[in-house]
Amino acid sequence: MNKIGQYSYHLPHTPSILSYASTAGKKEGEGPWGAWFDLVVSDTKMGERTWEKGECSFQKHTLRQALKKASLSPDKLDLLLSGDLLNQCTASSYAARDIGIPFFGLYGACSTMAESLALAAMLTEGGFGPYIAAMTSSHFCTAERQYRMPLEYGSQRTPTAQWTATGCGAVLVTPDGNGPYITHVTIGSIQDWGIKDPANMGAAMAPAAYATLRHHFKDTGRTPEDYDLIVTGDLGSLGMQLVRELAERDQMKLGPRYNDCGVMLYDTKRQQVACGGSGCGCSALMLTGPILRQMEQGILHRVLFCGTGALHSPLSLGQKESIPGICHAVALSTDKE
Amino acid sequence: MNKIGQYSYHLPHTPSILSYASTAGKKEGEGPWGAWFDLVVSDTKMGERTWEKGECSFQKHTLRQALKKASLSPDKLDLLLSGDLLNQCTASSYAARDIGIPFFGLYGACSTMAESLALAAMLTEGGFGPYIAAMTSSHFCTAERQYRMPLEYGSQRTPTAQWTATGCGAVLVTPDGNGPYITHVTIGSIQDWGIKDPANMGAAMAPAAYATLRHHFKDTGRTPEDYDLIVTGDLGSLGMQLVRELAERDQMKLGPRYNDCGVMLYDTKRQQVACGGSGCGCSALMLTGPILRQMEQGILHRVLFCGTGALHSPLSLGQKESIPGICHAVALSTDKE
Repeated sequence: MNKIGQYSYHLPHTPSILSYASTAGKKEGEGPWGAWFDLVVSDTKMGERTWEKGECSFQKHTLRQALKKASLSPDKLDLLLSGDLLNQCTASSYAARDIGIPFFGLYGACSTMAESLALAAMLTEGGFGPYIAAMTSSHFCTAERQYRMPLEYGSQRTPTAQWTATGCGAVLVTPDGNGPYITHVTIGSIQDWGIKDPANMGAAMAPAAYATLRHHFKDTGRTPEDYDLIVTGDLGSLGMQLVRELAERDQMKLGPRYNDCGVMLYDTKRQQVACGGSGCGCSALMLTGPILRQMEQGILHRVLFCGTGALHSPLSLGQKESIPGICHAVALSTDKE
Repeated sequence: MNKIGQYSYHLPHTPSILSYASTAGKKEGEGPWGAWFDLVVSDTKMGERTWEKGECSFQKHTLRQALKKASLSPDKLDLLLSGDLLNQCTASSYAARDIGIPFFGLYGACSTMAESLALAAMLTEGGFGPYIAAMTSSHFCTAERQYRMPLEYGSQRTPTAQWTATGCGAVLVTPDGNGPYITHVTIGSIQDWGIKDPANMGAAMAPAAYATLRHHFKDTGRTPEDYDLIVTGDLGSLGMQLVRELAERDQMKLGPRYNDCGVMLYDTKRQQVACGGSGCGCSALMLTGPILRQMEQGILHRVLFCGTGALHSPLSLGQKESIPGICHAVALSTDKE
């Protein structure tokens, strides 16, 4: 049995990250981590006629790039696990169609990078590899018109709003590699504290992020000090502050090692993104850009990657429902543990 | 390694189905299998104010029923894998919120019963149990207004259309049980033969169903004769006919053991459902109603359950895309194999 505690699994065979790739939009490339992405594109339609087809191309390009880095042809891939924010997850499905490999679609909203990576690690641990891919994307223009307003309206944003990242991250997981290793996963259960404002997703997701952190430390017996970086995302500055407050109430000391992908991705003030970044692509870009590279370079050794998602729909909010939040945590390490 | 061939896995520890439950709508209860469902409801809003909240209640009730049959409390569940057709899969997310357990959301359109069951079996095989739940639902009224027209318009249906089933199925998988056992899974890769008519999903999904059947027989070395029942779904009568034609071209003899959940669920002529049933709930109801019961009763011994899904969205069709189909196959047996 791999299970430890109520929400977590230890992966004793330590699935390894074989390769990873990131494709970022123009604005994301202009942020503080622009130089860490594999590719920054100025045309976020990727030469297609629509933003949705463009988002699909982000996925196709990123997966091919990850495969290329691992010197693998697509037909060697055992399984692709991916999802996105579009209705019916079409960026993922059409990308999987054009690559032509076994495919399981996921829906975890902005938690999808963590969900897909956790599942890829669990299935690799279970012997279903050797090559399983985890991927997700988001796109500012597809998300705005689907969740909020057509871009052409030029709607104003509230101070608690976040900016959906345009970008994609893909990770290949394999059983026998040289790391970084995936040592533990903590699976989220949904938390909903009654937030109904879709322009304040940080507050809606913060309770889920904190619950998963609490579960992870309780289940594994670890403390925040055991990590070089604990990164949630995409909570943004307000959601991150709420997690700190919840942690302080319980005397959990997150300290300076705690950060959030939504806070990190952009230069918040200069780039005018209100509370920060959001979207599946936000934590995917931070993971497959700076975080995994810094692990490879020996700057970071142990990282707790906590992807957060808001699982509402415009219709559910129209029906007076609140926003359910979820967070899955993936423990990464440069050592087998 | 569990992998056999390019698309399939053998599960040598034979995860077992611990319990299952089904909740059907009024029309589904009036079909030929009405007596086989655990519960048939006349109020498909389940006492809620909206159809969407009603669909969520279908899921909550069905999972609780499956847990009750296994004498398990919800907190004993290690993981819930579920998805549905609603934008952002809200029936599943809000149901998971109210039950409060570790949750991974899936999107496989109408293939979700097979996708969730395959993943539950693989994770159980991998040691991530002991109790993993697979679930999905669909609802005629939520699907019509999301994918087609508001019901109030009274739109006419084309002869190739199918009727989205109102219903939910849930299955609990465990490592050490008395069967029925899940012995093999074959994971689908997307097939798209250029169909663009959303009122002809049978034709859009038939190539995927046939590809997965072909992959399954090639990978496992089995033949159709090895099964008592091979059931696709939801292809409906036209899609099922197309699978037969594709099989005949390759001299694959499916014979009378081949059937389709979309053809089976309703009395097609009397209930005026054009080509038959569809929706995630269609194959979920057939599996958790008659199929698993007939396995328990010794009427069926080996079943190949092949869930099919169409992975388009109304927006992707509006952008002139065709409909990608997928099919995942799960081999069930009353014996360990």
